[in-house]
Amino acid sequence: MPELRKDPITDRWVIIATERARRPADFAREHVPAAPSGRFCPFCSGNESKTPDEVLAYRNGSGANQPGWSLRVVPNKFPVLQIEGDLGREGEGLFDRMQGIGAHEVVIETPDHVLNISELHEKTIEQVLWAFRDRVRDLKNDRRLRYVLLFKNQGQAAGATLEHTHSQLIALPVVPKRVQEEVDGAKAYYEFKERCVFCDLIRQEEKAGTRVITETDKFIVLSPYAARFPFETWILPRTHRSHYEDIDAQQLENLAWVLKTTLRKIDKVLERPAYNFLIHTAPLQEPANQWFHWHIEIIPHLTRVAGFEWGTGFYINPTPPEESAKFLREAGLG
Amino acid sequence: MPELRKDPITDRWVIIATERARRPADFAREHVPAAPSGRFCPFCSGNESKTPDEVLAYRNGSGANQPGWSLRVVPNKFPVLQIEGDLGREGEGLFDRMQGIGAHEVVIETPDHVLNISELHEKTIEQVLWAFRDRVRDLKNDRRLRYVLLFKNQGQAAGATLEHTHSQLIALPVVPKRVQEEVDGAKAYYEFKERCVFCDLIRQEEKAGTRVITETDKFIVLSPYAARFPFETWILPRTHRSHYEDIDAQQLENLAWVLKTTLRKIDKVLERPAYNFLIHTAPLQEPANQWFHWHIEIIPHLTRVAGFEWGTGFYINPTPPEESAKFLREAGLG
Repeated sequence: MPELRKDPITDRWVIIATERARRPADFAREHVPAAPSGRFCPFCSGNESKTPDEVLAYRNGSGANQPGWSLRVVPNKFPVLQIEGDLGREGEGLFDRMQGIGAHEVVIETPDHVLNISELHEKTIEQVLWAFRDRVRDLKNDRRLRYVLLFKNQGQAAGATLEHTHSQLIALPVVPKRVQEEVDGAKAYYEFKERCVFCDLIRQEEKAGTRVITETDKFIVLSPYAARFPFETWILPRTHRSHYEDIDAQQLENLAWVLKTTLRKIDKVLERPAYNFLIHTAPLQEPANQWFHWHIEIIPHLTRVAGFEWGTGFYINPTPPEESAKFLREAGLG
Repeated sequence: MPELRKDPITDRWVIIATERARRPADFAREHVPAAPSGRFCPFCSGNESKTPDEVLAYRNGSGANQPGWSLRVVPNKFPVLQIEGDLGREGEGLFDRMQGIGAHEVVIETPDHVLNISELHEKTIEQVLWAFRDRVRDLKNDRRLRYVLLFKNQGQAAGATLEHTHSQLIALPVVPKRVQEEVDGAKAYYEFKERCVFCDLIRQEEKAGTRVITETDKFIVLSPYAARFPFETWILPRTHRSHYEDIDAQQLENLAWVLKTTLRKIDKVLERPAYNFLIHTAPLQEPANQWFHWHIEIIPHLTRVAGFEWGTGFYINPTPPEESAKFLREAGLG
């Protein structure tokens, strides 16, 4: 019997279509190549002149936009938003518009031509996580910007156009609707219970155990109860914090291990699928609060999102999250 | 300069990324085959025993589940929801669930192995539109059901698994969040202005003209101001009605022409793209109202929806709707 499940944060119902239950091997999916294509790569060390000038780099004394770096952040060469200019808000009858002000940056995670963040050393992944924090803290000073989305598209099916491992950042002059909805849902719960819904979720999931993939003393990794997608995976910090950029050094160090382990498990069970990875964090200009709890959501691309999902925001998931969690939990990393 | 635009119904912002402006030929997309694959088809006349028993058929005196029909509606063989059983609502700590009660049906639009609804005669398309109305009216009697989504997945990239032209219907025991959001947005506007936002939109778009694709005395077809996708197309009836199932015979007849013409333009300009087509209508058990205005949304699959979109509900559209509209408006059908 299929089941309808409601996400406790956003009140979003999903169908867990057990009649169609699917195991990892059942999905016709793109496998991200294991070996480089050999095409010219603008992100490799030595090709710094092929990218816009860096806005941040971790380097060992060498000059800006020269080799000698271990991580670089550069503006996207084809940005969807621009940092210069005025918002120029205006109406046109029913409609509202403004200039496309914002930032669109690329985090080049390593100078070497590595194809997958999960292959990097933990210390290198830790640097990426530091770069996210450093960039958000810097962009926060621009009061026009209200939200920063940190994300990764891994593989062509997930929207990646270059194979060299990289993440992206888009800073926006508005809070996106889906983000606001998640924040509002968490706030409504807090107003009712005086507890954070994510903290409650962590306690309940830890007790149940069936959806837990892995845990440390600082993080818990799980398949969410009302998962929209097969093998959807959330990484939640145990310490309540609304904003990612307030993370501390011990947490960052542990997160590098947790992220690497989780992505390696996904790569193993699903054979290097394309995926998106997103950091959900509170709106940039809002002070720290008791209701929102930053976390990471990882969505492997295994199914096609069809008309039904787009029309309703009502997802059909053919794999119960308990099964996804079991496959990932039991995946040994050798 | 890229532009941020807000949809006046849902307050959803989108980025119109003019720096990446793309013409029809620029999209790497799936073309729906023009010729049949030759594989066995359970939807063709003579193969009635290969589908579940029909719930509706338009036929010329022949017996149920026999040849002699011009349109059949059958339950989906692999339904995501089932009609029998109790809702069995229950909680589990933070979580809510219920049994997957609902209907999942397939509208087989013609007995012949035609691959695209736009190739059917207008009278045949009119029958499809009648079948949508008849099925919704029937399902409305089941008071457990709160919403019916009528949709079509055309082409594999849009989620279709069989090539014989067909539509689908999913009836749900909840109102999907995105639908509720659209209804609430329209209601808030009505409470403020005492006018329907869609009626206002039609008047304004007709005056501006730049986003209009085609019009009749009963319908207007346009590219929406804050289109999420390149060549996203809406068909709006001029007469205000909240529920699709209240459509009258003259409107249905005209809609068949409008739908065929619109889809033929899309097929011509984008060379038979995969697409989804959705009817947006008011919740099933609610009485007719002054604020919601049923309409059809057509979304060609030209771009990959990446992590950014999924994480935020914030879409990046590389083709300004004025350009999409111009291409479609000017497409002669010979």
